[in-house]
Amino acid sequence: MTREQLFEQILLKKSYLCVGLDTDPKKLPEHLLDTEDPVLEFNRQIIEATADLCVAYKPNIAFYEAQGPRGWISLEKTLQYIPKEIFTIADAKRGDIGNTSELYARAFFETLKFDSVTVAPYMGADSVKPFLVQGGKWVILLALTSNSGSQDFQMLKLADGSEEYLFEQVLRESSTWATAGQMMYVVGATQAEYVQRVRKLVPNHFLLVPGVGAQGGSLEEISRLGMNQQCGLLVNSSRGIIYASSGRDFAERAREAALQIQQEMEGYLEQYVQHL
Amino acid sequence: MTREQLFEQILLKKSYLCVGLDTDPKKLPEHLLDTEDPVLEFNRQIIEATADLCVAYKPNIAFYEAQGPRGWISLEKTLQYIPKEIFTIADAKRGDIGNTSELYARAFFETLKFDSVTVAPYMGADSVKPFLVQGGKWVILLALTSNSGSQDFQMLKLADGSEEYLFEQVLRESSTWATAGQMMYVVGATQAEYVQRVRKLVPNHFLLVPGVGAQGGSLEEISRLGMNQQCGLLVNSSRGIIYASSGRDFAERAREAALQIQQEMEGYLEQYVQHL
Repeated sequence: MTREQLFEQILLKKSYLCVGLDTDPKKLPEHLLDTEDPVLEFNRQIIEATADLCVAYKPNIAFYEAQGPRGWISLEKTLQYIPKEIFTIADAKRGDIGNTSELYARAFFETLKFDSVTVAPYMGADSVKPFLVQGGKWVILLALTSNSGSQDFQMLKLADGSEEYLFEQVLRESSTWATAGQMMYVVGATQAEYVQRVRKLVPNHFLLVPGVGAQGGSLEEISRLGMNQQCGLLVNSSRGIIYASSGRDFAERAREAALQIQQEMEGYLEQYVQHL
Repeated sequence: MTREQLFEQILLKKSYLCVGLDTDPKKLPEHLLDTEDPVLEFNRQIIEATADLCVAYKPNIAFYEAQGPRGWISLEKTLQYIPKEIFTIADAKRGDIGNTSELYARAFFETLKFDSVTVAPYMGADSVKPFLVQGGKWVILLALTSNSGSQDFQMLKLADGSEEYLFEQVLRESSTWATAGQMMYVVGATQAEYVQRVRKLVPNHFLLVPGVGAQGGSLEEISRLGMNQQCGLLVNSSRGIIYASSGRDFAERAREAALQIQQEMEGYLEQYVQHL
């Protein structure tokens, strides 16, 4: 999917919501447990209930991997239920030496047909570039994550006289590897105070923003500080939507939770994106 | 597996060789292609041919993941062929926020029963600690990798007046999260000039060393500079062993290649490890 197609969907749906499919077999509503593939059935109903309110789905790969081979089958089938105009993100945080990253790219782009995959930057250029070879496919690179551990290394100051943090050097360096049509960055909603520093370095890139909801980030703040003229944000919510209810009404409640976020987003789009 | 048990195996086999199972379906000997699971059959014969010469096997998870669900089945079955006194490493380079890292830990330690998993440090303490909860299980954290991209971020100097590189801060900080009985570090053989700096910070930890062979690192150099009194090294070779021949004699040639490395290692163990 191209950046223009993604922005078109955002305008059409008045939404930059990404629904995180962190589907934990231990948290499924009881009435689904005797279906053939409860994880798939859960995802199918969540997708059906939210597809007109969001522009992206982000399966968290760990939740499928922890199930062994049958988790990968659930994942593969889940992707078939996602309408093709919706952007798909494999939240996998991969990254390895070149010949190995090529295989991860094959796993997510060819075998599973995702539009994008999240990648960790620690191993540098030749660990990320193998994910950048295919047209319409995206790398979403970790920059400044939403968790407390982001303080440990991402916020270290560098000795190059720039007063920059490591995450800024990651943005500066990696933005030379690809265009804003091939790369996005993960920036946690809990990091709103640094979003302006992010935008100085990557004004045009999309940011994938986790951390709204359960992790405490503010949608208003990240929207006000992080939007650009093509919106430039995909804000993720996982638990707040998919586990809005653990009963028979889980899909209906998921829709209500997604709708509430979409309506809030509609307001910010009107307020901050000039094209509207 | 405990550190003492691992060292015992090293002394017994006079080897600190780790055989990398980077099994690429496109590189398999032709005569295996009509078996039910060619990847598994290849691994089975490699393991049978090398098990008395090595102390660890390291499947590179990307190669299995790229095959979709059946790759995970090959991987699961491969582990059943590995004798239980041999240390197993899931070379997966995972790492995510806490609740997600917990699931990756479940995938590799519980579902697949690996002894250890490689983890990327960028997301900090709370992304690594969920892998540290289980007795006898290990985290192998990326410190200074063997690829050219290691220059991009790992070798950045920090502004804390210490003249330290980022990888040194990763060692310093992460070594407070766990003992040398729960954590190892990845240090590329191509980085021999920095091994003494590594050993200053983590004198007692095991290092997992890729980059000998195809990537150009020297076994002699890394052994001389990196060994400690419990050996402290697991040196990996993948392509040089498993693809020593692409014919019917692949397992025999793999054994010869492994034997050559083991014999060289026997010499370094006698020379550098005081317990021998």
